[in-house]
Amino acid sequence: MTVEDRAPELLEQATAVAGTEPLRETSERTGESDRLDGENRLKSDFVRRVRDALDEGERDQVYDLVEPLHPADIADLFELLDGDERPLLARAITDLLSADVIAELNDHVREALVEDLPAEDIALIAEQLETDDAVAMLEDLDEEDQQAVLAELDPEDRAAIESALSFPEESAGRIMSRDFIAAPEFMRVGDLIDYLRRDHDLPTEFWEVFVVDQGHHPVGTCALSWILRAPRDVALADVMKRDQTLIPVAMDQEEVALRFQKYALISAAVVDDAGRLVGQITVDDIVHIIQEEAGEDALLLSGAGDGDINEPLPATIRTRLWWLFINLGTAILASGVVAAFEGTITRLVTLAVLMPIVTGMGGNAATQTMTVTVRALATNQLTSSNTWRMIGREWWIASANGLGLGLLMAIGCQVVYGDWWLSFVLLLAMILNSLNAGLSGVLIPVTLNRMRIDPAVTSTVFVTTMTDTLGFFFFLGLADLFKLSA
Amino acid sequence: MTVEDRAPELLEQATAVAGTEPLRETSERTGESDRLDGENRLKSDFVRRVRDALDEGERDQVYDLVEPLHPADIADLFELLDGDERPLLARAITDLLSADVIAELNDHVREALVEDLPAEDIALIAEQLETDDAVAMLEDLDEEDQQAVLAELDPEDRAAIESALSFPEESAGRIMSRDFIAAPEFMRVGDLIDYLRRDHDLPTEFWEVFVVDQGHHPVGTCALSWILRAPRDVALADVMKRDQTLIPVAMDQEEVALRFQKYALISAAVVDDAGRLVGQITVDDIVHIIQEEAGEDALLLSGAGDGDINEPLPATIRTRLWWLFINLGTAILASGVVAAFEGTITRLVTLAVLMPIVTGMGGNAATQTMTVTVRALATNQLTSSNTWRMIGREWWIASANGLGLGLLMAIGCQVVYGDWWLSFVLLLAMILNSLNAGLSGVLIPVTLNRMRIDPAVTSTVFVTTMTDTLGFFFFLGLADLFKLSA
Repeated sequence: MTVEDRAPELLEQATAVAGTEPLRETSERTGESDRLDGENRLKSDFVRRVRDALDEGERDQVYDLVEPLHPADIADLFELLDGDERPLLARAITDLLSADVIAELNDHVREALVEDLPAEDIALIAEQLETDDAVAMLEDLDEEDQQAVLAELDPEDRAAIESALSFPEESAGRIMSRDFIAAPEFMRVGDLIDYLRRDHDLPTEFWEVFVVDQGHHPVGTCALSWILRAPRDVALADVMKRDQTLIPVAMDQEEVALRFQKYALISAAVVDDAGRLVGQITVDDIVHIIQEEAGEDALLLSGAGDGDINEPLPATIRTRLWWLFINLGTAILASGVVAAFEGTITRLVTLAVLMPIVTGMGGNAATQTMTVTVRALATNQLTSSNTWRMIGREWWIASANGLGLGLLMAIGCQVVYGDWWLSFVLLLAMILNSLNAGLSGVLIPVTLNRMRIDPAVTSTVFVTTMTDTLGFFFFLGLADLFKLSA
Repeated sequence: MTVEDRAPELLEQATAVAGTEPLRETSERTGESDRLDGENRLKSDFVRRVRDALDEGERDQVYDLVEPLHPADIADLFELLDGDERPLLARAITDLLSADVIAELNDHVREALVEDLPAEDIALIAEQLETDDAVAMLEDLDEEDQQAVLAELDPEDRAAIESALSFPEESAGRIMSRDFIAAPEFMRVGDLIDYLRRDHDLPTEFWEVFVVDQGHHPVGTCALSWILRAPRDVALADVMKRDQTLIPVAMDQEEVALRFQKYALISAAVVDDAGRLVGQITVDDIVHIIQEEAGEDALLLSGAGDGDINEPLPATIRTRLWWLFINLGTAILASGVVAAFEGTITRLVTLAVLMPIVTGMGGNAATQTMTVTVRALATNQLTSSNTWRMIGREWWIASANGLGLGLLMAIGCQVVYGDWWLSFVLLLAMILNSLNAGLSGVLIPVTLNRMRIDPAVTSTVFVTTMTDTLGFFFFLGLADLFKLSA
């Protein structure tokens, strides 16, 4: 049977594929519309219209407003509404609350929505989702609800989800898809194309075909563009790329993201401990992770946890309060140093005026260095091969900063207070604290990283302790040494 | 002529495609090797071997060491070496310094390497690069060198690069590729496949085919997997997805990245002002941008500029010093407040001991809120539709923080100093400064964003000013009001 003979049957299939997305104005997403602003965010005016319709219980009107939106925008709409409006919206838009929308929802928003649904409904949604999205939905549920939903699933889906849940959170096994195309290396291009045309139960998204040996170990990868361009009678082994990046199933998602980025991957084969192909990860699932992991450092350094504005308030307060509590310890330590020099301050109260400048400058300089170091570690730019160069760099920067700003402040101090010794002490303290800041800013994150502690989570406390405590000590200690007084 | 008749000719082409990457051990990049560590970084031991060989002038040995590396790892190697070792490595590895390596190099490292090369050599490399990578290489050069290189290029490449350079930096026009597959909507799947098999001069990377009307306006997109699965006699118009995200050529790359992420795109059509298809952007070029833009906020908030550890030292010192200088202004303002209360401190020197706790806690709390706000703005999670909810959230968090930590410190203060009024003043000042920190942390970035000023660049200075100046003012002002003295 040639391809042409099967045309009617396949046409139906092809239309089904094309029909998975509703027809919509192609120009809609190039720029502004009455729903989206120039930066592709839902207009507040549109959100208000939805809100008003929800308040008035006009479900049909809500449905009509939401219908033209892309699933990603429907997900955004849920996030923009208040917590109590979300279930109302879910009920009003009925079938528009598709698996695509659920997959795009923020974790916390999805969790709250899903908790309201009975197990059968969750199971229905889970069956439509890709395994990784279904897992993301189910992992939020508590053990009991999770079991109830799994019991409702058909055996195949249940097995896939249970297998995914057996891997640690944030590992490749959790985010991989179990739907992929694997082909034996001796298969010819033409046979592969015929197989793809024939089989109705293929994954919806694939960009590369994985070539495997008889033991199901991946031996190469064929981009679809190569398959399309190769003659039908060439064996896959002759068009495949043998150089491939294999992802072990237990690899942390941050590592996976770094490899996708480093080797510019579109998809990658996931292998089990025995090196057998068990899944694929595609770049569209990784893009979220890259964004999250890269943005995470800023949040972690500031002690704001995952900084999700949809996180329930008590959880956020707990995270932030804990961090501030730890930092309070740092502040008390620093003020202990000041307390030790109460006598010195009593002799010259101007010291209390100038001391925040020394610690403030040190804190800012250390934050710069620390942030650069943490980012360089996270992106694998800083390794043990160039740590000494980095330390040297920061030493020079700190010297320049300390000398430049110290002199500036010393001159200012001399003009205002006309006290040579005070100005000299200020200069010296600023130079010392600048060097302290620069070195702490590099050495603390690097050391934490060597100890396998995430430097983004822990560096700030230690670095602040160094610049505050030593900053006060340098300034007040020198003032005491030189017996400054009014 | 059927496809099979042309097999020999096409086989040659197919092999050429597959041959673009050298054959290498497939297991190499699954885990550790003698060159890469478990986190896929070059081992310091390996880097040392390269260094030693470079020092001893053993070029052949260097070549043999570097040869098995992936281009992305060769680029990493350049970055790990010191500035003066890099030209030596470039000379030693000769042909291994491929366009792929150049494309992967850090901007500053590439700039320094390229500056050493004569215009003809740069032109030779530029001709092998994709347009976007060639542009990245040439945009670093000064005007005169750029013209010299452009003059060496063949007219077609020159036109493409000049056209790219005519778009603003960091716009879609700079990062798009001018090589893409466009097909008319009435074309049949079989004809497209034959065309792809026939044409030798196609882009190396494509994942989707753009379907255009007679005016070259994109009307739909076909994923290659749909083309592979559709019967040969179906028209592209019947398998294409009409719903597509079009990227205007002037769009900022950060916006482009957000759309790729939001709509999980693999590639997207770039259109000019008249809506005509002029290029494509593929996700592998976007992944770097997503990572950079998301990681950038941490660096900008800390005033470390783009925080690149390969930036020349004087440029880094300039950026950092400028930021510290501005922040010194903040610190001087804050110490001006302290100076105004010198008399109060003289009466009770313990105030000088406790005042850093009030400002320190405020600064930390404000940094948390500010970082969350800046990230939420950058990811389009915070829009005018939910700004009030965000402010309300932060108000509650700040109240909880202020009350919790304030009470804790007040009790501690009472235990240590046994002064009810002092403890009360400390409690009150911490509550006030916590609320001040929470509100400043939201309102300042949101306001800057409304004014179209990047909140990541400017928020810290204003927020620190608020928490330091008002923190001292609340504490010392209340102490003065209640006439505290020893």
